[in-house]
Amino acid sequence: MDHPILTITHRIEFSAAHRMDNPSLSPERNLEIFGPCNRIHGHNYVVEASLTGPVNPETGMVANLVDLMGIMQEEIFEQLDHQFLNEVSWLGKIVVSAETLAVAIWERLAAREKELGAPLTLVRVFESEANSAEYRGPSQN
Amino acid sequence: MDHPILTITHRIEFSAAHRMDNPSLSPERNLEIFGPCNRIHGHNYVVEASLTGPVNPETGMVANLVDLMGIMQEEIFEQLDHQFLNEVSWLGKIVVSAETLAVAIWERLAAREKELGAPLTLVRVFESEANSAEYRGPSQN
Amino acid sequence: MDHPILTITHRIEFSAAHRMDNPSLSPERNLEIFGPCNRIHGHNYVVEASLTGPVNPETGMVANLVDLMGIMQEEIFEQLDHQFLNEVSWLGKIVVSAETLAVAIWERLAAREKELGAPLTLVRVFESEANSAEYRGPSQN
Amino acid sequence: MDHPILTITHRIEFSAAHRMDNPSLSPERNLEIFGPCNRIHGHNYVVEASLTGPVNPETGMVANLVDLMGIMQEEIFEQLDHQFLNEVSWLGKIVVSAETLAVAIWERLAAREKELGAPLTLVRVFESEANSAEYRGPSQN
Amino acid sequence: MDHPILTITHRIEFSAAHRMDNPSLSPERNLEIFGPCNRIHGHNYVVEASLTGPVNPETGMVANLVDLMGIMQEEIFEQLDHQFLNEVSWLGKIVVSAETLAVAIWERLAAREKELGAPLTLVRVFESEANSAEYRGPSQN
Amino acid sequence: MDHPILTITHRIEFSAAHRMDNPSLSPERNLEIFGPCNRIHGHNYVVEASLTGPVNPETGMVANLVDLMGIMQEEIFEQLDHQFLNEVSWLGKIVVSAETLAVAIWERLAAREKELGAPLTLVRVFESEANSAEYRGPSQN
Repeated sequence: MDHPILTITHRIEFSAAHRMDNPSLSPERNLEIFGPCNRIHGHNYVVEASLTGPVNPETGMVANLVDLMGIMQEEIFEQLDHQFLNEVSWLGKIVVSAETLAVAIWERLAAREKELGAPLTLVRVFESEANSAEYRGPSQN
Repeated sequence: MDHPILTITHRIEFSAAHRMDNPSLSPERNLEIFGPCNRIHGHNYVVEASLTGPVNPETGMVANLVDLMGIMQEEIFEQLDHQFLNEVSWLGKIVVSAETLAVAIWERLAAREKELGAPLTLVRVFESEANSAEYRGPSQN
Repeated sequence: MDHPILTITHRIEFSAAHRMDNPSLSPERNLEIFGPCNRIHGHNYVVEASLTGPVNPETGMVANLVDLMGIMQEEIFEQLDHQFLNEVSWLGKIVVSAETLAVAIWERLAAREKELGAPLTLVRVFESEANSAEYRGPSQN
Repeated sequence: MDHPILTITHRIEFSAAHRMDNPSLSPERNLEIFGPCNRIHGHNYVVEASLTGPVNPETGMVANLVDLMGIMQEEIFEQLDHQFLNEVSWLGKIVVSAETLAVAIWERLAAREKELGAPLTLVRVFESEANSAEYRGPSQN
Repeated sequence: MDHPILTITHRIEFSAAHRMDNPSLSPERNLEIFGPCNRIHGHNYVVEASLTGPVNPETGMVANLVDLMGIMQEEIFEQLDHQFLNEVSWLGKIVVSAETLAVAIWERLAAREKELGAPLTLVRVFESEANSAEYRGPSQN
Repeated sequence: MDHPILTITHRIEFSAAHRMDNPSLSPERNLEIFGPCNRIHGHNYVVEASLTGPVNPETGMVANLVDLMGIMQEEIFEQLDHQFLNEVSWLGKIVVSAETLAVAIWERLAAREKELGAPLTLVRVFESEANSAEYRGPSQN
């Protein structure tokens, strides 16, 4: 086995505010669905992204972690840290949940897959240690 | 892709005592198999439960986390926190290990799957950061 | 030594939004002082409160932890979880930093010191694992 | 300053069961005081011990960490791991709380202070991340 | 379902130094590929290993955790703790990355699969909380 | 009390190699004192630095955290991350332990106390979650 297949994962953290709210519904209905999460609150979000592929025998790496770190910095941290997520334009038309955030981040990272050097296989968003959502991409559908 | 498939996870913690012991075996045999774990000891147990399904576009959620949290509170925390697990009736006839606890918790949560709002796909029980057992349900057999 | 002096600590977590902003200053000056923290963002805040006193030989406790937990639940969690802290009335006229939050929480807990059962000696507020502020009370001045 | 004064800390973890109970009180009174903690339950306990003294310029150390680790292994881990603390003879006549455990561990470690190589200045016992007790010794009285 | 299939995981930690370097490349090329990781540095490595199989109804266990712990102690901790990994003979001819370390550890553990008592299904190596590599074995190829 | 006194703390992490070794002693004596720590190994070091002073009522802060973060980045991270500490010139003549590292970092930060905006009162260096050294400055002597 010259080229074993592995998955590498990088994790970053950012601090942001959000509220769970569907603007096409009434305030009463939003409160009923989302409860206290309908109010503006916030989290120290943790995002993990994983790439899967064969190890390059010259480098010992699936992909260059420096590239993954740089792209996550640009596409996640610089976009979302110290922001009110409901006002971030590329998130704005969805209910900003851990689930939709995971899908939206997947799409931004996947758009740069060539630079990542290996296929994106997982995006996981933690709102806290207790609550998270993970997305393994559209091929899961 | 209008309804991406995701997995959401909630984590709770409870404190309980247990001992690894099979009442149908002799004390000597129990001690041989389980070593120090045959004595009464305890843990801050962590339990994670995951649900997998399509995101509801109206709510941005796979299932309402408030429901998952409430059901885990009722079926796990209120049942097991500050208990000696070997004396909990619905656990009592098995060797109380992380493995059997994961299966028993799966069965209690799965019995309420309709209320959970999405299929249960994982129960993971940590006795500590160092030791855990995970169960993905009877369909894995 | 029949009554050794100890310190007990309880920790809770809540999720909230805030922005660092002094309404009596111009937006430009606020931005200059607070940088990105001037924008609405949020955290999973952790608050630790400590009580110090002699151990009661009848109970083995400095104070009843159940009381401390209940009071922290009422005075901190129920007040601040899933809130935009700048809009909480008893916080509203100060710059909402980890420091001022620690002092405001101290004052709320200290007002119930009789119920706590032992003197309050520390309040520590973590905005994240990386950043915290601790207050040991007015007697430090 | 040739010999700066520092504090070094080592942390260990053990798993044990206990119940909060004062045998000289009635079961009703014990339940009233201790609530669910009166039942047999358990924790992954964490114990930290600190030594304070000048740095030895030959070794760069306040005391040899290998000695501290060995003594904590003998006096704490080997005594308490996978035990029901209420049945440990040197703990048995007290209510087994985080507070009394901290004092009892202090006494065992302090009895070996000569081997530790520097004065013991803190023992901290965590029943969980949320609850702890710390003892700075009889000189605090 | 008499024999549900579960996965158990044990985690250990060791401290070691390494540098990312391919001796068959020039120093300039190594620096270009690996950047600061080309310098000697180190980590508190965390390694998780998982076994998957049916629960033994007599023991309540997939495999005896004591065996897994002992084998990980021998094959990982005793081999790698407080070592400069580039000088460990069984690692020496590869670029010592999280990926190649995961594969090398897999091979050592898999060689003892009979003693482990259940099939090895995952080795995960964390260089830090932020960076990890996981390997699910040659059958993934 | 218009200006309560608080302590703020910032924490950073870096990865580095070191060995415990006193070059003025023989290899045999070094091995005897330091055991396995005499070999080249490494850690994900965590450093916490604390400042103590009155809260500025205009900013709600003891000192501007952005300044503390920047100075710790320059004086610690940029100096020590991905380095072999025994070869860092400003550390080189001491035994590189957690203790001496804490003192050396204190001196670098204290030299910039004017920029920090409040007195430095604590530097704590963790080699791991289990082992740390803390220094409260030369005034403790």
